[in-house]
Amino acid sequence: MLVVMKKNATSEQIEAAVGAIEQKGFTARPIPGGERVAICILHNKGPVDASFFMQLPAVKEVIAVTRPFKLVSRESRAHDTVVEVGDVLIGNGHLTVMAGPCAIESESGALAIAALVKERGARIFRGGAFKPRTSPYSFQGLGEEGLKILAKVRAETGMPVVSEAIDHEVFDLVEQYVDIVQIGARNMQNFSLLRRAGKSRKPVLLKRGMAATIEEWLMAAEYIMEGGNDKVILCERGVRTFANHSRNTLDLSAIPVVRQESHLPVIVDPSHAAGFRDQVVPLARAAVAVGCHGLIVEVHNEPEKALSDGAQSLYPDQFADLCGQIAAISNLTRASMH
Amino acid sequence: MLVVMKKNATSEQIEAAVGAIEQKGFTARPIPGGERVAICILHNKGPVDASFFMQLPAVKEVIAVTRPFKLVSRESRAHDTVVEVGDVLIGNGHLTVMAGPCAIESESGALAIAALVKERGARIFRGGAFKPRTSPYSFQGLGEEGLKILAKVRAETGMPVVSEAIDHEVFDLVEQYVDIVQIGARNMQNFSLLRRAGKSRKPVLLKRGMAATIEEWLMAAEYIMEGGNDKVILCERGVRTFANHSRNTLDLSAIPVVRQESHLPVIVDPSHAAGFRDQVVPLARAAVAVGCHGLIVEVHNEPEKALSDGAQSLYPDQFADLCGQIAAISNLTRASMH
Amino acid sequence: MLVVMKKNATSEQIEAAVGAIEQKGFTARPIPGGERVAICILHNKGPVDASFFMQLPAVKEVIAVTRPFKLVSRESRAHDTVVEVGDVLIGNGHLTVMAGPCAIESESGALAIAALVKERGARIFRGGAFKPRTSPYSFQGLGEEGLKILAKVRAETGMPVVSEAIDHEVFDLVEQYVDIVQIGARNMQNFSLLRRAGKSRKPVLLKRGMAATIEEWLMAAEYIMEGGNDKVILCERGVRTFANHSRNTLDLSAIPVVRQESHLPVIVDPSHAAGFRDQVVPLARAAVAVGCHGLIVEVHNEPEKALSDGAQSLYPDQFADLCGQIAAISNLTRASMH
Amino acid sequence: MLVVMKKNATSEQIEAAVGAIEQKGFTARPIPGGERVAICILHNKGPVDASFFMQLPAVKEVIAVTRPFKLVSRESRAHDTVVEVGDVLIGNGHLTVMAGPCAIESESGALAIAALVKERGARIFRGGAFKPRTSPYSFQGLGEEGLKILAKVRAETGMPVVSEAIDHEVFDLVEQYVDIVQIGARNMQNFSLLRRAGKSRKPVLLKRGMAATIEEWLMAAEYIMEGGNDKVILCERGVRTFANHSRNTLDLSAIPVVRQESHLPVIVDPSHAAGFRDQVVPLARAAVAVGCHGLIVEVHNEPEKALSDGAQSLYPDQFADLCGQIAAISNLTRASMH
Repeated sequence: MLVVMKKNATSEQIEAAVGAIEQKGFTARPIPGGERVAICILHNKGPVDASFFMQLPAVKEVIAVTRPFKLVSRESRAHDTVVEVGDVLIGNGHLTVMAGPCAIESESGALAIAALVKERGARIFRGGAFKPRTSPYSFQGLGEEGLKILAKVRAETGMPVVSEAIDHEVFDLVEQYVDIVQIGARNMQNFSLLRRAGKSRKPVLLKRGMAATIEEWLMAAEYIMEGGNDKVILCERGVRTFANHSRNTLDLSAIPVVRQESHLPVIVDPSHAAGFRDQVVPLARAAVAVGCHGLIVEVHNEPEKALSDGAQSLYPDQFADLCGQIAAISNLTRASMH
Repeated sequence: MLVVMKKNATSEQIEAAVGAIEQKGFTARPIPGGERVAICILHNKGPVDASFFMQLPAVKEVIAVTRPFKLVSRESRAHDTVVEVGDVLIGNGHLTVMAGPCAIESESGALAIAALVKERGARIFRGGAFKPRTSPYSFQGLGEEGLKILAKVRAETGMPVVSEAIDHEVFDLVEQYVDIVQIGARNMQNFSLLRRAGKSRKPVLLKRGMAATIEEWLMAAEYIMEGGNDKVILCERGVRTFANHSRNTLDLSAIPVVRQESHLPVIVDPSHAAGFRDQVVPLARAAVAVGCHGLIVEVHNEPEKALSDGAQSLYPDQFADLCGQIAAISNLTRASMH
Repeated sequence: MLVVMKKNATSEQIEAAVGAIEQKGFTARPIPGGERVAICILHNKGPVDASFFMQLPAVKEVIAVTRPFKLVSRESRAHDTVVEVGDVLIGNGHLTVMAGPCAIESESGALAIAALVKERGARIFRGGAFKPRTSPYSFQGLGEEGLKILAKVRAETGMPVVSEAIDHEVFDLVEQYVDIVQIGARNMQNFSLLRRAGKSRKPVLLKRGMAATIEEWLMAAEYIMEGGNDKVILCERGVRTFANHSRNTLDLSAIPVVRQESHLPVIVDPSHAAGFRDQVVPLARAAVAVGCHGLIVEVHNEPEKALSDGAQSLYPDQFADLCGQIAAISNLTRASMH
Repeated sequence: MLVVMKKNATSEQIEAAVGAIEQKGFTARPIPGGERVAICILHNKGPVDASFFMQLPAVKEVIAVTRPFKLVSRESRAHDTVVEVGDVLIGNGHLTVMAGPCAIESESGALAIAALVKERGARIFRGGAFKPRTSPYSFQGLGEEGLKILAKVRAETGMPVVSEAIDHEVFDLVEQYVDIVQIGARNMQNFSLLRRAGKSRKPVLLKRGMAATIEEWLMAAEYIMEGGNDKVILCERGVRTFANHSRNTLDLSAIPVVRQESHLPVIVDPSHAAGFRDQVVPLARAAVAVGCHGLIVEVHNEPEKALSDGAQSLYPDQFADLCGQIAAISNLTRASMH
């Protein structure tokens, strides 16, 4: 932490700031510069609240120097974390494709789609049972019935399954039935749900909030790891910007940055980012080329009949093409990243 | 809903789109234009899923014409809703000031601040007992102990109290102790918590999410009203933009728009928007001038010792000045809005 | 400038970074912290290019400590600049209203509007002669004919006039006819035009770009002042965000920040920010309450016949009401800011 | 254009709106819906000013149905435009790499870098002679001297060269020396410069503004084409968002959308988007995978000595690796897009 004093700060004010810092138990080291003095705060363990120093007299600015996250940081664990889900590996050198419908709508539909995506290259099946919907009047998912269908899909196909938990009560249920519990973008800073996830022994797929910085996203993962669960898979799914040609703006620059800052695997959801099928395939290719560890993609055997998000669901043939393309890109990319 | 066909759409494709619309139970009325055909969808009750039509062959775009919200809409209730909390009124012609510390830190501190803000013009006392914090290592609030202190503040000062609920379990507790339950910005689309709030008989203060459109914010309020609770107070607290001189960008244009679209009262939180004390007083004045129904402001008797958000808390004297200024501005503004 | 080293930086790498800094002619002072070393760069006159240091081996981050602007900074001039335009003053304790149509459409129209706005409280007349338009097919303004009409308005009403210059050639013309030359939001970083403005002896109204940080905006003003023209009036007109209920998001938090960082006067354009008449009056009141030095507002005697931006132009009676309201708010605000 | 009336609009108000539309020379067709009436505007040639209709009594909203651009639209030209620069082709099935330093700093340096990038796969050489810089105190480029060096590079290597024009006067100069004239992001809505580019016979590289929608970007290209120059190459270079881990947020979803909406070639600049070398290579791969027609990349033989943007310039070896990777990805991608 660096406390920058105003140009006209008096030596009394500087001394007072030093005193206030040291009273908090830190070491303060003033650095006289050409125009002003800056005070470095040393020996702080863990995060320091910038706002405390911001309000001291004659302080112009407070600048954070160290990152607030610890357990998720690559500085605390140099090697990539690989999350194991059954015999499927996520992270470090693997490109794992999760696919399935937005929402589970029926057993027969789910089994049909699962067979299709498995044959075409998916390793994990996705499907929503409890859907977070902007409108209370929209289809909210089949609930536990949907989870039972997911369990049946796993039994019949051998694929692990992933589904979203939207609150504590649902988390208990979802955790019983699925292999990976998803925390959605709108709940990324539902700290209570993150703590619940920290107590789980199931891997957690943590989507980035639509206005979350990478630091906030990693801090959300820190909540889960701090609770004792280190099987966290990060998922970029687009952020909200002024751009209106896409549902969200997929931020692929996040992938190299997350990989540098953290040891956790990071995958990409091009379907929710795009909102339109035509953008999903090119963005999925780009996500693999940028170096993500996997994709989560919506696929439907009859998108025009889907109860939600039909317009962004791929047709099975599109998905098959996509799987072919990304395997080749992944080989190239992995080679280049050693 | 308007389904816009591509320029080169054939008459078969147009007929197919009309058929698909009518199969869903709507009326389709094609409008031949100079360059292309658009099909109006009529007689739809409630929201229509745009994505379904988006994927029909030769469809270029689908445009929503009506708003998806009903109960919160001014079209469904012409007169302003006034929320009563004890003898304090919020909405239509009243300017209600809520003030207090970011977090409840001790009984003596809370009582001291409450006495100060009451004397200077606050009608409702605010204070966090369960704090949503970006870092798991930061102070998380006193919990139920904080709620007991709030109840004591009410008993001693007669002021109603407001505090945030961060999950279901906490909602049950908070509801027992306080007069207004707050749902924070990070939980604005925690639909499960919104449903819980819909079952409450206590007024709910619903903060706008930091990347929420007005439509999404009103749809969140719709969840609460649809559940049976129509005592919803909206609260603008800044949105996330590229601008970095303020913690968030306070979006005051939201106030006239919300007042036009909805009958619900809408207040402003300049403290969390700004993040810095120096911006709070001018933004609070501006919020009143733009026509909001109230303010929620952080005040601390010793901001430099606050355990959270000290830099944005007003000193008691600043708060007193502010109350004087806004009373006069409110009179002017109200007169002009008749 | 603070150069933060990676945790695992070796002492050789730290020494190399110190050497590289000193070779550039600066003083480097390494600060060993609990976890890592940071190196302060001292005695730099003027801006230092962060990217140079960013690429040194084992450097994690480079943090700017001082602001890059000089002439516009309040640290270089403590007292508010007051720009004089004829007998009209802009800045420090004055609330100056500029009003008129978006574009000059005819002499009779301009004179009629000018008479109206003068009577109701405007001190300066605005009107576009050269219009920057998103589409090449839209009305582009009357050109020099419009400037002649503006000169006539001044001759008949005594009001100074302001109009936009969209390139060098137009600047030469506009400068001859008007009292204040406007540089529009889209040209805020047209550095060539800023240099031209620096050579002018006329005051310059510099609008904030729709994605400009305050630092970039003040640096644009720095270009003009560095060129020798210190009569710069800043103008906030909304920034681009995800919000779609307003044409732009008016960023009123910019006003207290600019007033703190700079001595230049800063006014607000609520018309272009809002895009809709119903939002203009409340936002104008808010702008005055937040502490701006003036407003620039679009008013038309027949908005429904306006050739551009009719929907955001106030009716004369609305403008009259507005002038009454803001005078009172301004008195209150000024008193509170002493 | 669709004019949506308020729910409570009277039949007189609807008739008045119809009359107002027809007075403008359009056909108005009212569509009675379940809850409200919408009026379709037909037979409009070219853009209609929405703001005119927005202000008619009882109008709730005005919705644009057709796109405002014509010449750049794929609806006006079905086949991809291929821009020829000497024997280099840009567009439709070609992946063209432009590379070189941010700024031309010396003849020997430019020649050294040109030789390096040519050998490694670049087809066009880039280098700034006139630099737009945020600060008036930063290095502004060598000016005409830089252009002469570019001409020399072309003479010695046979590579066409591209450089930026920042105003009219500079455009005249740049046009004489280079093969492609660049219009930078900050000048994307410098309409006067766009008109100048429309009169040129040289291809124009038009960067997207950092807060420009795709519609605005294509309208800027429309200015150039409307002026008579159809050799426009679009370039995505990142947009400004709240995200702060990258200099800008590269919006790769723009590529499939632009390719669908327009026949013009579109390339990507990962260097300015990222701002940091470590992000450039992965983003460049992603840009090719998403389907762009080329890249413009900063490469420097001694980045640590670069006078500007050293931190984002690739080392020659990184560039060589990149060229190898993208050639393979491009083959895959092109195959999949047929």
